[in-house]
Amino acid sequence: MRRHISGFSNPTVKYLRSLRDKKHRKRAGQFLVEGLRLLEDARSTGRLPQMLVMAEARAPHDLLARLEADVMAAGGEVITTTPDILSKVTGKENAQSVAGVFDEWDTSLETLDRSAAPIWLAAQALRDPGNLGTMLRTCDAVGAGGLILIDDCADPFSAEAVRASMGAVFTVGLAQARWEEFLPWLRAGTGQLVAASLRDAVPYRGADYAAPCFILVGNESQGLPEDYEAACDLRVTMPMRGRADSLNAAVAGAVLAYEVLAGVER
Amino acid sequence: MRRHISGFSNPTVKYLRSLRDKKHRKRAGQFLVEGLRLLEDARSTGRLPQMLVMAEARAPHDLLARLEADVMAAGGEVITTTPDILSKVTGKENAQSVAGVFDEWDTSLETLDRSAAPIWLAAQALRDPGNLGTMLRTCDAVGAGGLILIDDCADPFSAEAVRASMGAVFTVGLAQARWEEFLPWLRAGTGQLVAASLRDAVPYRGADYAAPCFILVGNESQGLPEDYEAACDLRVTMPMRGRADSLNAAVAGAVLAYEVLAGVER
Repeated sequence: MRRHISGFSNPTVKYLRSLRDKKHRKRAGQFLVEGLRLLEDARSTGRLPQMLVMAEARAPHDLLARLEADVMAAGGEVITTTPDILSKVTGKENAQSVAGVFDEWDTSLETLDRSAAPIWLAAQALRDPGNLGTMLRTCDAVGAGGLILIDDCADPFSAEAVRASMGAVFTVGLAQARWEEFLPWLRAGTGQLVAASLRDAVPYRGADYAAPCFILVGNESQGLPEDYEAACDLRVTMPMRGRADSLNAAVAGAVLAYEVLAGVER
Repeated sequence: MRRHISGFSNPTVKYLRSLRDKKHRKRAGQFLVEGLRLLEDARSTGRLPQMLVMAEARAPHDLLARLEADVMAAGGEVITTTPDILSKVTGKENAQSVAGVFDEWDTSLETLDRSAAPIWLAAQALRDPGNLGTMLRTCDAVGAGGLILIDDCADPFSAEAVRASMGAVFTVGLAQARWEEFLPWLRAGTGQLVAASLRDAVPYRGADYAAPCFILVGNESQGLPEDYEAACDLRVTMPMRGRADSLNAAVAGAVLAYEVLAGVER
């Protein structure tokens, strides 16, 4: 279906704007993705928006035309509107000329196949959506199966997380679980749980990593709870040569992930 | 000197607010730092704010009292104000209860002593202040001498960069230079320039790193210009097992920095 929206007070505009808010995203089960590049990443992995919103006076573009056709063929909606309304929807002065509304998908642990990859990232109580997106991007880079979000984390479907993931939110696995669900799930199969830790830890470099290896990173300011660390199979520590005792969470995860990659491929 | 400010229209309030804007920071040569933890990091390295701004109804605090005394002893100004005015200054609803105004310092290449550390980070046209701050934090962690910002980068004195640095902006070296200044400076002494690259590169792991090693990371979306890469002594590549061909800039810098750390200590 095709529609044109010319008024700011249109209910669809109000709905689209509401998706900037986590509470509304959860209620609707949908999220908004801005920019052709991310939409194309989604399309290439078989995910199409339910609704495509485009600014009218945009330049013609092959990729966009194909996306439009795919959305129509799948029974979705294509909406044209003014650049001003699109800016209002995305909350940015220089809005991208296209955005898409996607259904959120199932992020239960059961959707993950642990045998599909030698490395997995897990983050506990990760609060920063930029860190979350960066970890998804790192998953893609190291060939990790995906990211498991434990306890209360930032929303992986927020605009900032999606943007920082550079599209990896569509391509790598994603699960959300409480620790009380995660640990039994992990122990029901093979899997080595590795924490970046300062307590009772071995040097991260050349440690005895085994696939599938689950790298667990803690909250930005608190780190991991002590009992979570104790439940890990391996605690590793990275050199800290300065005044601080920790790295940025996404950085710590990536440095460890690259070390594990070298380890499991040895 | 001690002062109390109770009115939103006070010129000092206007001045403090103006420091959220890069143009005004550069004109004034000053920047604003929020929160006792960062102020304490600064104090511990001998940097005191010219002006300390505190909310009146704050809880008594030993560290804050010491900071206040130090600022007064150094001839600085201590200002008390309302929590509302402090929120207006920082632009945050839940403002920290204290902020400080620091003089920016000399960030010319001549302030760096390359023999002081085996590793240095350099970033070219880095646009994201969060990435910039994260790289400063990584410098601290790996014992790098500091961060060299090449060409037009984000402002290291922005609130976001200072916050992401977790105080490292005060403790590690910091320089800003054009490429045309940086390269002659580098070549005037010993120093290996290493780029993360996809072109004509060797595997990053176990490459022949030599101290002082300068790790060069490019712009978030463009990477490094080809002639910058060509000017490097060593081009290294990290495994990219997914769809994307790059990592987040701060992540790439950190993964490389930890590898170089292992290399130069071998």
